[in-house]
Amino acid sequence: MNRDPHSWARALDSLRAEIWRRLKRGVQDRRAPARHPTLATVSAQGLPQQRTVVLRAADEGAATLRVYTDLHSGKIADLRASPVAAMHVWDKAAHLQMRLHARVSILTGEEVGHIWAQLPEAARLSYGSNPAPGAVLDDALAYEKCPREAAFAVLHLELQDMDILHLGPQHRRARYRRADGWQGQWCAP
Amino acid sequence: MNRDPHSWARALDSLRAEIWRRLKRGVQDRRAPARHPTLATVSAQGLPQQRTVVLRAADEGAATLRVYTDLHSGKIADLRASPVAAMHVWDKAAHLQMRLHARVSILTGEEVGHIWAQLPEAARLSYGSNPAPGAVLDDALAYEKCPREAAFAVLHLELQDMDILHLGPQHRRARYRRADGWQGQWCAP
Repeated sequence: MNRDPHSWARALDSLRAEIWRRLKRGVQDRRAPARHPTLATVSAQGLPQQRTVVLRAADEGAATLRVYTDLHSGKIADLRASPVAAMHVWDKAAHLQMRLHARVSILTGEEVGHIWAQLPEAARLSYGSNPAPGAVLDDALAYEKCPREAAFAVLHLELQDMDILHLGPQHRRARYRRADGWQGQWCAP
Repeated sequence: MNRDPHSWARALDSLRAEIWRRLKRGVQDRRAPARHPTLATVSAQGLPQQRTVVLRAADEGAATLRVYTDLHSGKIADLRASPVAAMHVWDKAAHLQMRLHARVSILTGEEVGHIWAQLPEAARLSYGSNPAPGAVLDDALAYEKCPREAAFAVLHLELQDMDILHLGPQHRRARYRRADGWQGQWCAP
């Protein structure tokens, strides 16, 4: 009898399938670890920048992910300087670290109008503020939310590789690459 | 009567003190959110890289943090190319996101011999493996741990700035800079 709750970690195919299962669960379930990944970008000055984001879409076939943001946020400036990002998820229950690397397209305007149209009013509050995110304030609350479609952007992440670490009685690490058709290979943890 | 459990978020000084309190708790308490920050670096190719690390020291007076690593890990190669890092903590109970930016020194050999000497045998297993971390393997378990002092490195993070976000009924964001003596200023979330 197989008592290993993480037997999916033993083979490259089942490990990759588990990664996508957990990413897709992140899109659906507010309490899933992949709901709130950490997104890293590189600023125009070459400095790494990180922030928590909300995972909005995960397409296994295309190996793409999506995140929404305010068009005036710092990450947009970073991505205009360098259109690459890393996404990090630590899934504690699965003992699984996902390190995903992507090229990023910034989608705005008509391209994402159908997404904006379906956002509830409360959700729209995250897109658009006065002054813009990061502006210096005299008082902590001297800003106002002013949701507007023109401030809404979708980050479309085309994954290039996934570096996966499973912490078990013996650790396993696998690297998957778009260029290799995502077949994967083991590497030393 | 003050019913706000996060009243420390209302003033720049008390918010900064709370950040350091939680960072120091991360060093002491394995279950604290700041125990396992995400560390971001920039590779020689200019790509952002992230991984979970363990916070080993937090010195409020000097505004420095420490992390241990294998000298042959990818993050060391990144830091030799670009000696800067970001550290990210999401403290869920406190509704607090910490984005810390640092210049990084890599300490090895005699400089850190006193730390190595005090590491339990089990802890030493994280430093030194054959082949080195990231090397391609034919089989997932075709590697061995071979702890050795020569593979032990301490990352010394000299914080340059802290970008802090508190999510409350009204969000507050503050930025603190070494160059300003850490006095802090509010900015738009």
